[in-house]
Formats: sequence, C-alpha cells, structure tokens
Amino acid sequence: MELLFLGTGAGVPAKHRNVSALALIMPEYKGETWLFDCGEATQHQILHTKVKLPRIKKIFISHLHGDHIFGLPGLLGSRSFQGEDHPLEIYGPPGLRTYIETSLALSGTHLTYPLKIIELVKGVIYEDETFRISTDKLAHVIDSYGFRIQEKNKPGKLLVDKIKHDLGVIPGPELKKFKEEPIVKLADGSQVESAHYLGPEKQGRILTILGDTKPCPEALELAREADVVVHESTFRSDKEEGANTFGHSTARQAATLAKNAAARTLILTHISSRYQEDVTELLDEARLIFNPCFLAEDFWSYTL
Amino acid sequence: MELLFLGTGAGVPAKHRNVSALALIMPEYKGETWLFDCGEATQHQILHTKVKLPRIKKIFISHLHGDHIFGLPGLLGSRSFQGEDHPLEIYGPPGLRTYIETSLALSGTHLTYPLKIIELVKGVIYEDETFRISTDKLAHVIDSYGFRIQEKNKPGKLLVDKIKHDLGVIPGPELKKFKEEPIVKLADGSQVESAHYLGPEKQGRILTILGDTKPCPEALELAREADVVVHESTFRSDKEEGANTFGHSTARQAATLAKNAAARTLILTHISSRYQEDVTELLDEARLIFNPCFLAEDFWSYTL
Repeated sequence: MELLFLGTGAGVPAKHRNVSALALIMPEYKGETWLFDCGEATQHQILHTKVKLPRIKKIFISHLHGDHIFGLPGLLGSRSFQGEDHPLEIYGPPGLRTYIETSLALSGTHLTYPLKIIELVKGVIYEDETFRISTDKLAHVIDSYGFRIQEKNKPGKLLVDKIKHDLGVIPGPELKKFKEEPIVKLADGSQVESAHYLGPEKQGRILTILGDTKPCPEALELAREADVVVHESTFRSDKEEGANTFGHSTARQAATLAKNAAARTLILTHISSRYQEDVTELLDEARLIFNPCFLAEDFWSYTL
Repeated sequence: MELLFLGTGAGVPAKHRNVSALALIMPEYKGETWLFDCGEATQHQILHTKVKLPRIKKIFISHLHGDHIFGLPGLLGSRSFQGEDHPLEIYGPPGLRTYIETSLALSGTHLTYPLKIIELVKGVIYEDETFRISTDKLAHVIDSYGFRIQEKNKPGKLLVDKIKHDLGVIPGPELKKFKEEPIVKLADGSQVESAHYLGPEKQGRILTILGDTKPCPEALELAREADVVVHESTFRSDKEEGANTFGHSTARQAATLAKNAAARTLILTHISSRYQEDVTELLDEARLIFNPCFLAEDFWSYTL
C-alpha cells in the first residue's frame, strides 16, 4: 500500500502545496486506488503521477469545504473522457450528493460509468472480505469525518512439513483448501481442522485518515493502534488557541493524539501556507512527542 | 490592454495546456482585469502570473461546460481569503447563478465582497463611459455566448496652436473643457464649438472573444471589424465534420470568419489535446486564409 500525497496545503492553493488530496494505491489489490479528498486541481496533480483515473474506485470526502471538494466535478468528468465504464463510489457528508449532481447537471457532464454517492453516517460504511471501513464525526466548524481503514487478517502460512508428517502427501488442489475452509475433508474421508496446519494469522494493516479537526475523542478512537495516522497539522503550537477556534489542530496536538492512540506512525499534512522553510518547526515540535513522524509534501509518498 | 492566456486547451487539462481561461489586463484603466471563462485550476495558473485576484472586477463565462467553469468557486473563495471587499460581477448563461450559489453554500464559502451574477440575454450587457459590451448566442451543443468589447472613442488631441491663433491665450482649466463639453463658453462670454479645436477622435479598440462554437452568423457579427478576435480552434480541418457535429470549429473555419468579418488580428485557442508538436499545422492552415494569426499557448500574451 502506498500513500501518495497529491495536495498537502490548507485553505488556498500555493505554488508549493496544492489543496487537499491523498491517493491510496494498492498494487497488492490489482492497483486499485482510493482517493481521500479532492481539492481543486487534484486531476492536474495526478497528471504528474502514476495514478490512473480508471483505477480510482472509491473516493472519500472528509468534509465539504472548497479546498477538499472543488476538484471533484472535473475529476469525475475527466474519468469519463476516455469512455471509462468501471463504477465509482464516493463517500462523503450529507450535501455532497447535491453538490455533485448540481455541478454535473449544469455543466452538461454525462458520465460513462455508474456513480454511487454514499452520504456518511457514523459506523461501518463499507465491508468486504478484505476491508472494513468505518467513520466518525470529528470536531471542525462544519461536519468533518475521519476514516479508519482496517485490512482484514489473512490466514497464516501453510505448515507443509507438519501436514506431510501428520497426514502424508496431499495433492496441491487439496492443500489450497487449508487456507479457504475451517474443516478439510481428505481423500480417505477423514476430516481435519485447518487451523492446526496454518502458522499465525497475518495481521491486516490499519490506516486512519482524518479530516480537518481540533483534538476530539472521536479522532482518538479512529486512530487507536493504527499503523499509520494521517492527521491535519494546520498550525504550529504557538497558534493553538486560534487553530482550535477554527476547528484545526497544531502539530503538537496531532502528535499527542498519535501517542495516546498508541499508533505506529504519524504523517502530518494540511499545512497552512504561512509556513515555508520554517515548516520543519512543525515537524520538530511533533517529534518531541511522537516518533516516527513525517510531514508530507506534495508528491511525497509513504509505503506501508 | 493585454490578453494573457491562462488556459488554451479543450475539454480536459493536459500537462502543457490547462482548460479555458483568459485574462484581459488593462494598465490604462488602473490595472483593472477581466476574466473570460474560468476552467479548473485557473487560480493555480494565476499564481504564476502578474494577475492579482482583487483586480479582477468582471468575469465573463461563455458557457457552462466544466472546462470553462469548474475553477470558478475556488477562485471566488480565494479572492475572499485575504478579506478583499471590491465588488465582483459575473456574466454568464442562465444556470450560472444556481451553480455558483450551490457550490458556495454547500462548501460553506462566505465571500467578503459583494458578488453580482448577471445571466446573459442577447444584446448590450454592460455600458459605461469607457466600454460597451454586447453578447450573442453562438452555435454549440449547449448555450454558448460570444462577447464584443467595444472601447468608446476618445476625443482627439487639443489643437493648441489653432486655439491660440483664433481665440488668444486661454488658461489651463478652460482648455480642459474643450475635451469635456461640446460648446465651450469663454471668459469674454462668447461661445465656440469644441470640435473645431480638436484633432480626429481616437478610435476605441474592439475585442471579440468567442465561446465554443461552430461557424455561425452571430459569431461573424460579433467579430465585425474587430481589432482582435479570439476564436476556438479545437481541430484541424481534416476533422471538420466531427468538429461541427460537436459544435466546434477548425482552425480554417476560424480564419475564414476573421477574413469575412474584416477583423484585424486572429488568435486561435481552445486546442484539442490530441495536437502536440503538430499544433503548428493548425496555425499553418489558418494563415493560408488570414493574417496576422496567432495560436495561443498557456501564459502567452498579446498586447493591443
């Protein structure tokens, strides 16, 4: 899994940081790509990366502020431009459907693929055999959501030597069943429990991506023991009061959350354009509290 | 007056051409700037130019296709970000108001300046002592408009020697009146016609900026004897049938219009991304019919 940061700024685009967007690229799942937020010119940023619009199958919108959604109608239209027909799902706060449908209808944008818009309610919003995605409302000036992406555990390694020792030689197609079924029926009619012949389960990864927020218990719960937490860090801690008044966090507050949540890695993003070379001070204050901690730049990526 | 091309592509953004936007910068009118169309990431392009968002006082939208409007909500929001309070007027086809108001309301964008949205009807849409702007509907797949910006003629030079010879020495403040009033009353009570003491009127410039269109009589009328015509040129003439089916023009058709309209200069823009190095072929076919003719690139400017 690779997190590719497409826009790491806050509020307005700047030359060096575009407004919010983050791609999750999953080569281990056929290159499926998910997008988190879609500020204006996200599709322009994508032109300079390996992200392919048809591979984007899900988009998660944390909240409806312009710097998180104004790139959506254009990206949806461009995804259609080559006749793409793979369905797309978009998850976001109530109001998102009206925004998308109004923009597409008035601009005469006819999509060539099925679009499903799911307005968020706290709890599990998606589940299949591989992932479980849940959301909760954070603490911002408008409704803003965080997402916890939990990859499900995978069966452990097949203990081939133990199988051979206990059960004798078993043909390949039979062996496969140990990973697929709890009870395996052997050729001689006997039955065995698969679990005896598998190593420890492979733990699924947990990825927490939070929308704009000041510190709140919901953010902490979403980030609990996550492998990676992506957290906004709009200001340095000398601006804590102002930051919190506008529903934002400082770098120190993001680090404190990661520590309290017992997360493994913290990535700071959504950086105010007021910070230029001195942006390292945000990273420094966070690292005093939590490590490993990174501060994202546009086009920077992190593999987990 | 300077025409600064911010986006010269068609349909979808490409690395080398953004979607439609054109700035008219007027140093002779206090640097007032007008914008024609506002595709996604127009505000990003502006970051690399001398255009200042507070100086933009009027925006003209030719039609509601996404590649001409999806940059509008973000630009309006960013113009507000520094607390700008100069009013802004936006002219565009019916439906524009709903698009803008929905986008701003749902994204919680509160403007710090008065915004006036004027939905277009054929005819004169704006007039003051300096300009007269008229519009008409072109021939595209949705309602698309062209704009004729007519700078009013200015009084000719004051013929100081003739005044001295005929009327004697006249104080400065009195002299000014020759440019302001048709009849000037002199200190001795006598009256003279100003026109006798002014050189030939300075002709105002005519600038025609057309939205997406196939050839049509309305485009021809708007371009009549214009100093500059900015015309779409989505395809080369080998694709004329397809171009016209989708309400677009070829380079040759744009040149033919400029010739028939007895225009002075033609600028081609709105170039399909299918043309890369071979884009010169569009210019070549136009120049066989009309000169001077230019093909715009992003950040290219023309002074008139």
